[in-house]
Amino acid sequence: MSARVAIEPRGTLPVPRADDGASARRAAAIEAAVTAAGGVPTPAAEANALVWLSVGDPAPLTAYLDEHPGIEWVQLPWAGVENFAAAGVFDRPVTFTCAKASFAEQVGEHALAQVLALYRHFVRQARSRRWTEVEPVSLFRKRVTVLGAGGTARALIRLLEPFGCRVRVLRRSGAPLGDTETLPVSELPAVLPETDVLVLALALTPQTRGIIGAAELALLPPSAVLVNVARGAHVDTDALTEALANGTIAGAALDVTEPEPLPDGHPLWDLDTVLVTSHCADSFEFVTDQLAARVRENVGRFRRGEPLDGLVDGSAGY
Amino acid sequence: MSARVAIEPRGTLPVPRADDGASARRAAAIEAAVTAAGGVPTPAAEANALVWLSVGDPAPLTAYLDEHPGIEWVQLPWAGVENFAAAGVFDRPVTFTCAKASFAEQVGEHALAQVLALYRHFVRQARSRRWTEVEPVSLFRKRVTVLGAGGTARALIRLLEPFGCRVRVLRRSGAPLGDTETLPVSELPAVLPETDVLVLALALTPQTRGIIGAAELALLPPSAVLVNVARGAHVDTDALTEALANGTIAGAALDVTEPEPLPDGHPLWDLDTVLVTSHCADSFEFVTDQLAARVRENVGRFRRGEPLDGLVDGSAGY
Repeated sequence: MSARVAIEPRGTLPVPRADDGASARRAAAIEAAVTAAGGVPTPAAEANALVWLSVGDPAPLTAYLDEHPGIEWVQLPWAGVENFAAAGVFDRPVTFTCAKASFAEQVGEHALAQVLALYRHFVRQARSRRWTEVEPVSLFRKRVTVLGAGGTARALIRLLEPFGCRVRVLRRSGAPLGDTETLPVSELPAVLPETDVLVLALALTPQTRGIIGAAELALLPPSAVLVNVARGAHVDTDALTEALANGTIAGAALDVTEPEPLPDGHPLWDLDTVLVTSHCADSFEFVTDQLAARVRENVGRFRRGEPLDGLVDGSAGY
Repeated sequence: MSARVAIEPRGTLPVPRADDGASARRAAAIEAAVTAAGGVPTPAAEANALVWLSVGDPAPLTAYLDEHPGIEWVQLPWAGVENFAAAGVFDRPVTFTCAKASFAEQVGEHALAQVLALYRHFVRQARSRRWTEVEPVSLFRKRVTVLGAGGTARALIRLLEPFGCRVRVLRRSGAPLGDTETLPVSELPAVLPETDVLVLALALTPQTRGIIGAAELALLPPSAVLVNVARGAHVDTDALTEALANGTIAGAALDVTEPEPLPDGHPLWDLDTVLVTSHCADSFEFVTDQLAARVRENVGRFRRGEPLDGLVDGSAGY
């Protein structure tokens, strides 16, 4: 089958951290990937496939698809597509793929960096601007609980291997993730009291929204730390703030927050036991490279009529 | 042979980071280790071995040994014994062992934590106290040069394995360290331009003092970062400060400084590209446990007349 691929939107990509030429470079990399896989970059009217480069608001994509009913497959640029699910984008008879697992390597790396930074009090060290002796905590042989069993979880587990941690993964199905001890999410209350490091690496769905609230935080040991590289809305921010202020848990590292951005003056900014990293786990070049690689792979599969990589399960919402 | 072991000094151990009972707990752990290995904790006058718990000033140990010539073996509590070497402590006909390699696991962990924190701009994130998007750098597949081939180097290399880095070790002898590419220190000028991450994990000797100065820093790429978990005097602090201020290199993480402690108001405190961690790589409990394990091992070897673990090479100074 021919792959006539529109790449949109052009020139309006919000890339807050990169330079002015970044949007154009990313679009060019995607176009090269389409061509390399034997696809043809095509204006919207004749396209049967679409690479959608814009994140956030689903409305422009909905309008675009209404206008161009010939599009059979849409590749989305990020892993977390909960906004699109909530807006009903996936209800239409179009195949959607996202970037799930593509960016996992660097998100797993970020989660490891966050745990080590919490355990070694880097926020306090950075803020004190004077010699400040602290008592570090080692990650070696700690009990790590990971919520979610996607690419991020797998990437993190690989990085944890030399630390000899006891890693347990909790996922919806409870189906084993390789050699790692895997449990259904229903076991969360039983596992929390045996957790030193709790890592959130799961998709945001109506079922996982607010999965960590006051009750869950109270079940963790006081020495426990929380790392969130998934979505801010997994955590009840007020409950977390209170738990940190009261010493219910020892620390938290948040690459994502609710609300996001975390507002100026929020009490979390003032706690030295909290590291907020402003949704910066992946580098721009890495995201571009990985997205181009997925586009290239999927254009090839689309042409050969094979199942696509990173298929969105519309009913699950990820 | 009987091991009649004095444990000194008692009750005066400076343990700045731990609670009041810490000195007593460490001494008790060492005493238990001596006994477990069949040794006999003994007052100084009858001892033929000594576990010396105080770090820093070598003068009290020199005086102690002058007073008690029956002591044949001294176990020192830390890995870096350069002050004792400089004071001529090792010139006397006594066997010295130190804790070399004992604490390596957590020092390697600290070095990894520091690299990740630099690459992910945690100092800037921690200090801004507001949402601050930054462009992270990933450690995956980077070129890491480690100066030194002792326990810390080996521990770090194990932790780096999942990152797929190109690791090169530079050591005095150039003798291969396992499967890792190993070169003599004389290759430093050739290797620096091909280095993304430079980690100092070597002993301080007259030959390695000031091994990183302005000339070496200038050979690094502008994107390079420096991590020092060895001794502050390996680095020319003024040259480093200038290189960081000028962007000659991208960042530095220092667990050790020269002078140490780094004085209040030093310009390094104000750079967001610098993470100073106040000589805090090892936790107190870990140090106690590891030292007790080495004492237990060495008391057993001493009794059986076997070579001791962690022997200080007086002529090399470590």
